[in-house]
Amino acid sequence: MTLNETHDPALKSWVASANTADTDFPIQNLPFASFRRRGSQAAFRPGVAIGHHIVDLGALREATVFDGLAGEALQACADTHLNTLMALGPQAWSALRLALSRALREGAALRRVIEPLLVAQADAEFTTPARIGDYTDFYISLHHATAVGRQFRPDNPLLPNYKWVPIGYHGRASSIGVEQHFARPLGQQRPAAEGDAPEFGPCKRLDYELELSIFVGQGNAQGERIPLESAEQHVFGLGILNDWSARDIQAWEYQPLGPFLAKNFASTISPWIVTLEALAPFRTPWLRAAGEPQPLPYLASQANRDAGAFDVQMEVLMTTEASRARQAPPARLSRSNFRDAYWNVAQLIAHHTVNGCNLQAGDMLGTGTLSGPGASEAGSLLELSQGGKAPIELPWGEKRTFLEDGDQIIIRAECVKPGYPRIGFGQCVGTVAPARL
Amino acid sequence: MTLNETHDPALKSWVASANTADTDFPIQNLPFASFRRRGSQAAFRPGVAIGHHIVDLGALREATVFDGLAGEALQACADTHLNTLMALGPQAWSALRLALSRALREGAALRRVIEPLLVAQADAEFTTPARIGDYTDFYISLHHATAVGRQFRPDNPLLPNYKWVPIGYHGRASSIGVEQHFARPLGQQRPAAEGDAPEFGPCKRLDYELELSIFVGQGNAQGERIPLESAEQHVFGLGILNDWSARDIQAWEYQPLGPFLAKNFASTISPWIVTLEALAPFRTPWLRAAGEPQPLPYLASQANRDAGAFDVQMEVLMTTEASRARQAPPARLSRSNFRDAYWNVAQLIAHHTVNGCNLQAGDMLGTGTLSGPGASEAGSLLELSQGGKAPIELPWGEKRTFLEDGDQIIIRAECVKPGYPRIGFGQCVGTVAPARL
Repeated sequence: MTLNETHDPALKSWVASANTADTDFPIQNLPFASFRRRGSQAAFRPGVAIGHHIVDLGALREATVFDGLAGEALQACADTHLNTLMALGPQAWSALRLALSRALREGAALRRVIEPLLVAQADAEFTTPARIGDYTDFYISLHHATAVGRQFRPDNPLLPNYKWVPIGYHGRASSIGVEQHFARPLGQQRPAAEGDAPEFGPCKRLDYELELSIFVGQGNAQGERIPLESAEQHVFGLGILNDWSARDIQAWEYQPLGPFLAKNFASTISPWIVTLEALAPFRTPWLRAAGEPQPLPYLASQANRDAGAFDVQMEVLMTTEASRARQAPPARLSRSNFRDAYWNVAQLIAHHTVNGCNLQAGDMLGTGTLSGPGASEAGSLLELSQGGKAPIELPWGEKRTFLEDGDQIIIRAECVKPGYPRIGFGQCVGTVAPARL
Repeated sequence: MTLNETHDPALKSWVASANTADTDFPIQNLPFASFRRRGSQAAFRPGVAIGHHIVDLGALREATVFDGLAGEALQACADTHLNTLMALGPQAWSALRLALSRALREGAALRRVIEPLLVAQADAEFTTPARIGDYTDFYISLHHATAVGRQFRPDNPLLPNYKWVPIGYHGRASSIGVEQHFARPLGQQRPAAEGDAPEFGPCKRLDYELELSIFVGQGNAQGERIPLESAEQHVFGLGILNDWSARDIQAWEYQPLGPFLAKNFASTISPWIVTLEALAPFRTPWLRAAGEPQPLPYLASQANRDAGAFDVQMEVLMTTEASRARQAPPARLSRSNFRDAYWNVAQLIAHHTVNGCNLQAGDMLGTGTLSGPGASEAGSLLELSQGGKAPIELPWGEKRTFLEDGDQIIIRAECVKPGYPRIGFGQCVGTVAPARL
């Protein structure tokens, strides 16, 4: 995807809050969500972020302000979610982005039409940006796979398939939400002694997982694979995902068919999807380190090596009941970068469909926990606390091995480079409530 | 669920084909599907089977023939699928069943209204009975788990969690269909020698899996578990499922997170859902054999022990290009019975939601391969051919270890007992097409 006029770093918006250095949403970003006014009983509708505001695309649609493909894309915003727009494909997304960029620039004549349709983000509530049909979670951080593998299988941390297969599994779509406040899950845990009955009760090793979400735009027909070369044309954009994990439930249940109740009680995402086009200035080469095997041909291309990765910086923050009571700032638990992953976006799409599996507009892929190479780049408490053996200390004096009731995890992501406005992802926020006994 | 007038074995229908000994669909059955006339471009709509015919519930709805709760349930058949009806809950399903039973009996005055709305099953085409939001596959046959475990992990066939946890994992909803004709999947397979690159190409060990499907009716709110006592009130009914499996892809990819591309290229179901109410005469006690552990309290109740299982007899049939060319009858590969499973329907619902996971109307659970205790009761070729070591012989002279292109698998299920009409499930049919290279 080449850069175009929407990527001009000099562009300013007539929405003043979009021109400040601290905004996640300058006019070069234009991410999409599904929202409504907080407390409203109205249907959710698509919106695009600009500074502190949201352009109500459902309302703008009624004004039929855009022609051609952009107008067609705007008509797709009659949906409650982004699925209809997603299904139109990358030319339509790009046309709508260009029309919105022009309409939101300083001096744009359409300001007269759009300004009355702005909703302050502070007055909005969000649902998932898409109706998520299927959710697949991958496992693309070698650093995470090695660290976790060491704890579950000390003798065999990294399985022989890892460097060849982008390991993934199906997750639960129904329990994905934004700004979740969920009860600590109950479940079976490993027996105290072999041969005993398992324990049963509230999870004792509740964890978060720092991930990005990848939203499928146009899907593929069942039986037709998506080749690596066109894989990114099927991706609408990226968001943030916290794949909460009950480690003790997982350890007992996960063999031989993978995690189930350890994951499907809740998965929290950010409301905003940043389009691949907005991320184009932050592409980076995707390289295998010396000594690592090169991928099989269906997962390899020169274009993918040249620019298949994205430089997205992420951070995990935490608050607790105690920290909020004393109004302490959130503690940063770790930072990490998407470019350090062992597989990239296009490879995940190509792999997922190589057997003919059909993706559909609005499907969500998770990257898996994006731990980086450094100790401070671990994307879960399981890694940070070394499986609970080394409690982490929070700035206000509390310690944690795993999550306690009332703990809140905030994940942020952003793209930063000199001379270009910061492209932010908003945030992914979830809070642990006590178990319901 | 107690028996009522709809279960009277003496009932006859004014639809003559419903009164023959060989029909799957006597008036005591009344299963639901989503159908339209073959070749039509009309929307699919709900229907109920009677003998060789289908009552078009979408059309019957317009005639507003039923009062009260049955009338409300009929209004829910304005949907293209059964989801709206499913969400109404068991009282509504039961009221509609009773009204349909009365309207289809010999001498019913409503014959005048309904007879013009009948569609011959031979003239119909089907889609999935529900929009399936999430698909979970379980693993509830101890016999299958042991036999397969022996091949994947000879030293450790049955893992220590098996007798405590109803093992399940998430499957792919998008690739579920009826009467599928799917291309042999491509994928990575284990390297010839350790350390080599994996092989890549069409699956060489393609298999079927004999399963039943369990359709969720009313769901639960996220965070609220469904207790065992009320679990069956959330189940609309059962169908047949063939969970096609690429064994060589599975063997290489499945650790540590479970099967993925080995399963998600296609999963074929029968069009008809037989309601739990129709199955009430075929309930049987659910008993653990002597020496087996009793389930944890959240999976145990006296009512569940007394009548938690269902006596459903299943059979797997096969045709090949050669057998069809010579018009040979299908070969029966195995027979098995649902009552031999290690866990039952109510337990799967209670387990799935014990952590707060929300089920939704139209969600589908698979039982996992329902192999019985005997060698002729194996529900997959992996078991029947002992992992490919012992080819099975087909009556027309061909041999099989795994599926070849053109092979067709037909699964049937039925409930039979003396003095009661046979309750059939129709059939689940799928055919293997050559790989698309």
